[in-house]
Amino acid sequence: MQRYFVEQAYTEMVAEGFSLEGEDYHHAINVMRMKEGDQCYLVFQDEVAIKAEVTQILTEKVLLREVAREEQTKELPIHVTIACGYPKGDKLELVVQKGTELGAHNFIGFPSQTSVVKWDGKKLGKRQDRLSKIAKEAAEQSHRQVQPTVTMFEQSALFFESFSGYDQILVAYEEAAKIGEKAQLVRTIQEMKRGQKLLVLVGPEGGFSAKEVSYFESLGAHVCGLGPRILRAETAPLYLLSAISYQFDLLQV
Amino acid sequence: MQRYFVEQAYTEMVAEGFSLEGEDYHHAINVMRMKEGDQCYLVFQDEVAIKAEVTQILTEKVLLREVAREEQTKELPIHVTIACGYPKGDKLELVVQKGTELGAHNFIGFPSQTSVVKWDGKKLGKRQDRLSKIAKEAAEQSHRQVQPTVTMFEQSALFFESFSGYDQILVAYEEAAKIGEKAQLVRTIQEMKRGQKLLVLVGPEGGFSAKEVSYFESLGAHVCGLGPRILRAETAPLYLLSAISYQFDLLQV
Repeated sequence: MQRYFVEQAYTEMVAEGFSLEGEDYHHAINVMRMKEGDQCYLVFQDEVAIKAEVTQILTEKVLLREVAREEQTKELPIHVTIACGYPKGDKLELVVQKGTELGAHNFIGFPSQTSVVKWDGKKLGKRQDRLSKIAKEAAEQSHRQVQPTVTMFEQSALFFESFSGYDQILVAYEEAAKIGEKAQLVRTIQEMKRGQKLLVLVGPEGGFSAKEVSYFESLGAHVCGLGPRILRAETAPLYLLSAISYQFDLLQV
Repeated sequence: MQRYFVEQAYTEMVAEGFSLEGEDYHHAINVMRMKEGDQCYLVFQDEVAIKAEVTQILTEKVLLREVAREEQTKELPIHVTIACGYPKGDKLELVVQKGTELGAHNFIGFPSQTSVVKWDGKKLGKRQDRLSKIAKEAAEQSHRQVQPTVTMFEQSALFFESFSGYDQILVAYEEAAKIGEKAQLVRTIQEMKRGQKLLVLVGPEGGFSAKEVSYFESLGAHVCGLGPRILRAETAPLYLLSAISYQFDLLQV
């Protein structure tokens, strides 16, 4: 069943009545060809999701009524932010699409010392919009209750200032995998409690430099290995999110 | 350091001396610009890997000597075969590339009842070659000690006959995720022992039909959920392989 993320909180919209407008209106009418009596999910900014039924179709608005709350929790108990040093090509698209399916809360791009690609402010804005749209579509398709945010930093310093806002920080570091580091990922995520925030740093193709990793460590980050195989820049975040889901969604039940 | 999969067993090649020929020769000379004294890894069909040093460059052959065995095991303790009902587009390419990085031993494609794409024998052969090449490159890049095989079935019946060769069979089934099935993946993989074979069945875009799933179950397969979010056809195998690596490479140490 189709899923729409609306830009208001449930508590706001319940007062004025549920509706779809703008792009979602056009999607519901022209793509899904919804009629009165058809149902869809509405997901609100406060993580509430409901099953709703179309009651009326107006010129630029679909009106709906609540049928039931969605009871099953679709979200990971911890909030995971995936931060990628800008990789080449369209790898961030893959990370955002798959990472949204796998439960990430936020995506961040930043210029790593080893990033080959340079993005200026205007291009970054466009890219952020495009990636946000990919996140929205993937969130709808994968039945998320949260639409992940995408933030693209032009200067890494501004991003580094935000590190104090996280409960734990992990750095996926190829050199750690090579020397067989195995304990840190398990230790960190098993220590985390519901609602806590995890930041995961993943390098571009060449990996982070040793200097960058030391700097991250000085800001409270822990280096972790992701098994003995060397993963590409865009595969590491998918491994991490899958491992976190396995730990919290399947093992701890 | 560059890694080459050679088509002989270590025990065979050690007698006649180590060498690179054909495509690997051209890659070593023209792409890597290797010279006498340079080092690379050689990986043999019997899962032995060595660090080797170039001793001489001939017209169509690079001669090498063994420097050291590679001690660290890069392979999962269980052999995982990922079988995909043919999906649309180039999704199999993504599954083979990322699945190789994540440790799969074999990839199988087969026509599922809900597969939209139909492949005939000749096209399938070409596709199998292309996917095998992707697996080889990804195995080199991710430092594998096994080069995964790719087998594309034209008739699913032939594939189903091979089910008895596996110790465990799992079906990733969307409907299981929807009703909150959480226990099967953990139970199955935690029961498995070193060297055992796991077959994982993943549907195309529309998922498997209920009838197909019943048939798989009659052949010994167990249905499993992969967390509460709905994963795309190409994401489910990556989740499974990451979860298996987390369980065996990081948790059980």
